[in-house]
Amino acid sequence: MTLDPNCPFCKKLSDPKEWPASDVVWRFPHSVAVLGQWQQYTGYCILVSREHATELSQLGPNRAAFLDEMAILAEAIEACFHPHKLNYELLGNQVPHLHWHLFPRYVTDPDRQRPVWFALAEADTDTGEKRRLETSPLSRAETLTMLQDWLAANNAPGERGA
Amino acid sequence: MTLDPNCPFCKKLSDPKEWPASDVVWRFPHSVAVLGQWQQYTGYCILVSREHATELSQLGPNRAAFLDEMAILAEAIEACFHPHKLNYELLGNQVPHLHWHLFPRYVTDPDRQRPVWFALAEADTDTGEKRRLETSPLSRAETLTMLQDWLAANNAPGERGA
Repeated sequence: MTLDPNCPFCKKLSDPKEWPASDVVWRFPHSVAVLGQWQQYTGYCILVSREHATELSQLGPNRAAFLDEMAILAEAIEACFHPHKLNYELLGNQVPHLHWHLFPRYVTDPDRQRPVWFALAEADTDTGEKRRLETSPLSRAETLTMLQDWLAANNAPGERGA
Repeated sequence: MTLDPNCPFCKKLSDPKEWPASDVVWRFPHSVAVLGQWQQYTGYCILVSREHATELSQLGPNRAAFLDEMAILAEAIEACFHPHKLNYELLGNQVPHLHWHLFPRYVTDPDRQRPVWFALAEADTDTGEKRRLETSPLSRAETLTMLQDWLAANNAPGERGA
């Protein structure tokens, strides 16, 4: 796998201490799934390409497998937490290394008709809002285990994170 | 293909008059690519699933092909307009029928580190900003033709829209 020493995601991928085991949901062949910060969206995960690439076109023959891993993780989130809708986003405007944000949206979210980024922008300056957006009815450990158990039971390629 | 009579995207897919030929970039086997409204992001396209489904998991064996069509269209946008970065987003918070937003981001965009939704929200109330975000250095016809020519030259599955 090609890594870039100046890329924050490459650093996390190459140094096990950079990503706490308690955050790593699943190690797929082409990507690593980690539980994200904003667990008001219970099950929110980031899926990081193992290879340093900034667009899907750079993955060559691995592109389909990377997209399939994203869809499998999305299916796990859907099956475990039954969101109203999923949001699938690959942006990279700040860190261009390919990574998917998978945000489950719930009917209880008054802001559910808008992208999550408006609420998350408020968390930058409002510590109460930040805490609210980090908090789920489930603990992070419970959320992690539910996803891992579903992925294991459904023979997802790769292995459990922790 | 299963369509839902109450879904705005299904209506557009079933009635040729609903989508002007001048907006349709490409008809893939599993999706239709249309040129989006916000051409400040030159080449911005929406890729709509031909089948009415609200999550990728509902596409069954067609999921991989639908994702591949998205990646081919993204590659066309990249090859034609050389953006700084692409944003790939499947949200469906307002219209849940599966559709990708492919937003090319350019270095000339002062807001390029943030999702496009902040600028687009301003267009709701500011007609000057709305006009700016709809305007590209290229005409819509030029943009459409460049994408179609690249897709044809690269043997994309399906056929030219117009």
